[in-house]
Amino acid sequence: MSSDATKLWTDASEGNDGLVEELRRETPGCANRIHFNNAGAGLMPQGVLDAVKRHLDFEAAIGGYEAAVAAAEAIDRFYTTVATLIGCAPECVAYCASATDAYTRALSSVTIAGGGVVLTTRDDYVSNQIAFMSLAKRFGARVVHAPNARDGGVDVDELAKLVHRYRPALVAVTHVPTNSGLVQPVVEIGAVCRDAGVLYLVDACQTVGQLPLDVSLIGCDFLTATGRKFLRGPRGSGFLYVSPRALAAGLEPLFIDIRGAEWTEPHAYRTRPTAKRFEERESAFAIKIGLSTAVEYALKVGVDCASLRAVALANSLRTLIEGIPGVRLLDRGQNRCAIVTATVAGVDGHEFHRALEARGVNSSVSVRSVAQLDFSEKGVEWAIRLSPHYYNTRAEVEAVASAVAEAATDNAT
Amino acid sequence: MSSDATKLWTDASEGNDGLVEELRRETPGCANRIHFNNAGAGLMPQGVLDAVKRHLDFEAAIGGYEAAVAAAEAIDRFYTTVATLIGCAPECVAYCASATDAYTRALSSVTIAGGGVVLTTRDDYVSNQIAFMSLAKRFGARVVHAPNARDGGVDVDELAKLVHRYRPALVAVTHVPTNSGLVQPVVEIGAVCRDAGVLYLVDACQTVGQLPLDVSLIGCDFLTATGRKFLRGPRGSGFLYVSPRALAAGLEPLFIDIRGAEWTEPHAYRTRPTAKRFEERESAFAIKIGLSTAVEYALKVGVDCASLRAVALANSLRTLIEGIPGVRLLDRGQNRCAIVTATVAGVDGHEFHRALEARGVNSSVSVRSVAQLDFSEKGVEWAIRLSPHYYNTRAEVEAVASAVAEAATDNAT
Repeated sequence: MSSDATKLWTDASEGNDGLVEELRRETPGCANRIHFNNAGAGLMPQGVLDAVKRHLDFEAAIGGYEAAVAAAEAIDRFYTTVATLIGCAPECVAYCASATDAYTRALSSVTIAGGGVVLTTRDDYVSNQIAFMSLAKRFGARVVHAPNARDGGVDVDELAKLVHRYRPALVAVTHVPTNSGLVQPVVEIGAVCRDAGVLYLVDACQTVGQLPLDVSLIGCDFLTATGRKFLRGPRGSGFLYVSPRALAAGLEPLFIDIRGAEWTEPHAYRTRPTAKRFEERESAFAIKIGLSTAVEYALKVGVDCASLRAVALANSLRTLIEGIPGVRLLDRGQNRCAIVTATVAGVDGHEFHRALEARGVNSSVSVRSVAQLDFSEKGVEWAIRLSPHYYNTRAEVEAVASAVAEAATDNAT
Repeated sequence: MSSDATKLWTDASEGNDGLVEELRRETPGCANRIHFNNAGAGLMPQGVLDAVKRHLDFEAAIGGYEAAVAAAEAIDRFYTTVATLIGCAPECVAYCASATDAYTRALSSVTIAGGGVVLTTRDDYVSNQIAFMSLAKRFGARVVHAPNARDGGVDVDELAKLVHRYRPALVAVTHVPTNSGLVQPVVEIGAVCRDAGVLYLVDACQTVGQLPLDVSLIGCDFLTATGRKFLRGPRGSGFLYVSPRALAAGLEPLFIDIRGAEWTEPHAYRTRPTAKRFEERESAFAIKIGLSTAVEYALKVGVDCASLRAVALANSLRTLIEGIPGVRLLDRGQNRCAIVTATVAGVDGHEFHRALEARGVNSSVSVRSVAQLDFSEKGVEWAIRLSPHYYNTRAEVEAVASAVAEAATDNAT
């Protein structure tokens, strides 16, 4: 790809066929599978794969530390590239080994003890929920779930009331839940948090690379992201955004290390001024370079246009499968994204997943233990998750819909 | 390599020349550099490099989640291989993104608040020291440093007195400090901790792959390790050992996630029985497979014999450089390992490091801020660290000694 992102998409919702073909040629996995598991892990473009392998070779050739010094410029590009992607200064970006790693580092910077409240949603990611419960068990934190609006998604007015009632130590919202196509109103929630002056943490694990993100618009103090999903980076990569406000307030991770602080006297350390205080000294630098390359690729493709195509493909898929007997679509909320979730009556979720796999379709299955609150409300035990990206095609959408219809019939008990 | 480890070393302290040549041929970096920076990051053998790259290719070909399922057996071998290396059950092993990652997960499982004591040494790793200071700042933990014996290394009798005086929440000891050739008496300290029934955490970051390790002999509750140093694995890898006793006591990391726990009810989770409760769900699986391959390689080479060779090379180097004018060896303690540290009068540490690099020698330089207590006692501002491994040669030792002599002369102010 050499042209500008703006020129790449002649029809944003459909995409320029020639362009999509080019993007698919740059993606080895497109030849082998119908990959509708981008919400699990997206397919790496060849350029990302090559960048990771090149640095590994370099490390083996001259030594791991020596290679990091020699590649310092490429490694440092990570910060400016991510900053461009999410609309912040490079000083606000920290590299992390995953979205959860980023999340727990951010969470660890806030002391939530003795009845302090974490205010969250009923659709927040399972690992975040477990971390909140752990803080409750260890330090007596209270976890409050804001109620949903009638059509799904958190009710912002009700959340605002809870902010004023509890003055939470932290408001924590997962932008796009892992187990449904819902998009939470993170900008509106941000306005509530800014008015009230409370800390605001957004989990953008499923959003980054899928939908445009602008942290100044959201007004969050922290935003966490993974590399492996819609950004199409390598597994074991992620990043954390920390607002200038949170940095100035002196927030630092509980387990800060020599990357984030300098040991200045026998009993004192000095914290770094930038978001790098949230990093760990050791990283898989090859993986970090891979993520950086993936972000550059996303910027070149253009998330704005690409997201329209991915969501359009998901909407087409919803239309095609909602009429299939036994299939029930589960996505709620006013805004829906490129994640399609459905359940099928009388069928085992894992068997259904395998049946799609046997038809060449990559998908994911979510069970109740990843979504206790959401699945209880929906009254389901499992959901199949089908998540196209911009490099998927309408022909693949039709093939997936056929596979769903066949699997729903063949596997019905 | 096909033969048994026991047959590989005809003369343990020197090594079989043919064998060492074979090991060097399997190590691409040996052709390019005199790598005496194994305490930074060891050179990956070709087989480790290939294993990482193969899994990355696989992920790009069929999808990251799908590749992890297909390679589940190879990924699971990690646990049995590491268990063999350190003498424990596979259920006691957790994969981590680095030694510090492992360390903070272990540390986070112990509540050290309101005057609770962390008893540690004056030579513990800088990042551990900073983490203790952070716990002091946040929760009022007290950090107590046991004094050293006259010849260096912690005084075990004095440490035992402190254990009985303070009943510490945790005794934390770095087995081999990053900035000196000292080996701490971890077995003797373990006996003290077991007698007193206090939790015992050993940082074996510099030990694993360098010296034989047996957790049942040490009697620790936690042991942390990296993959990238003497194990010769990829960067961004590590592991944690958790004792059956610590698991049975219900210790779990503060930021436990869906890998370590199952969300069973809206407000409850169930912790995993094994050490996997200390893991995070997301990993760079290619890197994990690389570490597993590196551990298999170490077992095949045989750490027992290989460590004798590495230490013998280090001892030769000490003998050769201690007579060089201006050079002062800094290693203390009764037991010394394959890490050689020295300072040079009237020379800048970074310039000295660059001067060695210009002569084809990879080394590291440590400055005072990584070793406030140790370097204060030694009265030095910096130390050059030269760390051979079993794949280095006596000819390389001589070349390094010549390079040190030249750099000491050329760079003297």
